[in-house]
Amino acid sequence: MKVKICLIGKGTVGKCFLELLNKKLPIFKHKFDIDIVIVGIFEIDGGLVNKSGLNIRKVIEMDKDFRKLNDWKFNINPLDLISKIDVDICIETTPTNPETGEPALSHIKAAIKNGIHIIASNKGPFYLKYKEIKELANKNACLIQYEATVASGVPILSIKKSLGASKIKAIRAILNGTSNYILSRMASEGIDFSIALKEAQELGYAEADPTLDIEGYDAAGKLVILANELLGWSKSIQDVKIRGISKITPQAIELAKSDGYIIKHLAIAENNSLIVEPRLIENYSALNISGTLNVIELKTEYMGSIVLMGRGAGGYEAASAILNDLFYICDFLKKDDNI
Amino acid sequence: MKVKICLIGKGTVGKCFLELLNKKLPIFKHKFDIDIVIVGIFEIDGGLVNKSGLNIRKVIEMDKDFRKLNDWKFNINPLDLISKIDVDICIETTPTNPETGEPALSHIKAAIKNGIHIIASNKGPFYLKYKEIKELANKNACLIQYEATVASGVPILSIKKSLGASKIKAIRAILNGTSNYILSRMASEGIDFSIALKEAQELGYAEADPTLDIEGYDAAGKLVILANELLGWSKSIQDVKIRGISKITPQAIELAKSDGYIIKHLAIAENNSLIVEPRLIENYSALNISGTLNVIELKTEYMGSIVLMGRGAGGYEAASAILNDLFYICDFLKKDDNI
Repeated sequence: MKVKICLIGKGTVGKCFLELLNKKLPIFKHKFDIDIVIVGIFEIDGGLVNKSGLNIRKVIEMDKDFRKLNDWKFNINPLDLISKIDVDICIETTPTNPETGEPALSHIKAAIKNGIHIIASNKGPFYLKYKEIKELANKNACLIQYEATVASGVPILSIKKSLGASKIKAIRAILNGTSNYILSRMASEGIDFSIALKEAQELGYAEADPTLDIEGYDAAGKLVILANELLGWSKSIQDVKIRGISKITPQAIELAKSDGYIIKHLAIAENNSLIVEPRLIENYSALNISGTLNVIELKTEYMGSIVLMGRGAGGYEAASAILNDLFYICDFLKKDDNI
Repeated sequence: MKVKICLIGKGTVGKCFLELLNKKLPIFKHKFDIDIVIVGIFEIDGGLVNKSGLNIRKVIEMDKDFRKLNDWKFNINPLDLISKIDVDICIETTPTNPETGEPALSHIKAAIKNGIHIIASNKGPFYLKYKEIKELANKNACLIQYEATVASGVPILSIKKSLGASKIKAIRAILNGTSNYILSRMASEGIDFSIALKEAQELGYAEADPTLDIEGYDAAGKLVILANELLGWSKSIQDVKIRGISKITPQAIELAKSDGYIIKHLAIAENNSLIVEPRLIENYSALNISGTLNVIELKTEYMGSIVLMGRGAGGYEAASAILNDLFYICDFLKKDDNI
């Protein structure tokens, strides 16, 4: 059985995905007897298209020069082609406008309308238009997987399948590595916010414009997805009360420390409300993690808290999440095929 | 669709399971249109049997007096009845002999030979006869779920389904709450092992005979299951190098502390070997958890470490794990039924 994939976006995540996929092809063959074939790879200015399947190895080898391959065509657009080429799964990894969710949102909707399953790594479409996408997918019998959008490779969305009969009542999490790195450094070194930010920028943990991270918008988007998936809510980012960390002082951190507390940028979903803001947590709390890690605490009805922790960002991490999503869809397609 | 269940063992876990099941019946009805019916509940001296389904509420209400119910019969045995009553799923929660895995092992094998799916909460059969049980189950097309055997409600076995395309290379874990409680108290209070053990016994965290916990046998059994499930190994408890914590002194803990380390009773699976022993870990390690919690670190190929943490014991926790396993099997049966 052949499964045809179209990859939209060949940035860091797209590139890492191709590399890992190339290594993992035997798993899909062995486990499902499925041959994964990439029929299209789109970038902003055109795409590689080959209906019989692109040569993945060559695409990887050419690296940034992939436009020199014979299959490259300028000025073609996935939106035009998606209804014309035969594709089973569309993998969306383009950079997303945080306020509109574009171009990912249009790609996803177009693909679903053509009965194509979706794997996405950008959260924009889901914290903006969760309900709309879900309804469209249900109507068209499409699967949508987007594990990479929250905490990257940490399987915090798909863990829901493991907790089928259990109720998750609330979520507390640290979902932004940049702001957690800054607060960790402020706490351990007693330095000012601006110095810790500069350090994070120099180390590549913070972007030149760090607003989305330090003001909580990035964490808020992830929180919306977590709450919708794990608590069954139907919220969007407009529903989140958001406060950033830029006004936290070393003095405030010191004061907290003297009482056995630490200040963390928490994302909280409970009692029907969504909040991202600096909060005091106890020093020995499972949420007291240092550096750029992510951590998510699920408060359950009968099992206390279950905590997951891991790297919340990175090209290979996100690519791994996409591959795990692909594995899930292939498992589904295989069972469907056997019916 | 009706799904018929037989519960073997009505101790703490069995009792909590009945309570939670009674509350969660609507979920199975709503999600799968499945009516869960309990046709048998067995204890060591007899059983409640009713082919049309026992009245779960009455069984719960009668509590320890369940033998007074009309459906009770003395001197009947699940091994005799399992081939005679029509059962879809057998839930095994009896206390297990740690060296033989009995009586659970015999119950499980008999059920599988009759084509009955298994949910089990006791680890004995799996750390002793993993390969044999798996092969028997494959031959008879039976599902075997045993999430409760390791870290109770923490979905550390079923998380494998979420990481289908990812390779887990090694595992480090704290799998025994009793020994972790003792070491935590020794570290925080500077007290001797024997005093910390006595405290744990008084609080109900350690049994009168704590040997299995403090000498590492309990953790070793769980480690075998983790390694077999998550790393694809095929080991038994005889393959584990086991050292306990009873010889740890406050002086050793103090020495470690002065270098930024703490002594923990780690269970480690890596490089084809299984080890349970006291180890130094860095103070800021994710494995440095206090009290009776369990923690498991999965070292992956491309995503760094993913860490799960939660309560490793408790009646409702284990019962929740059983219910999640039941949910998984019902999902399977429903899909199978639709084919």
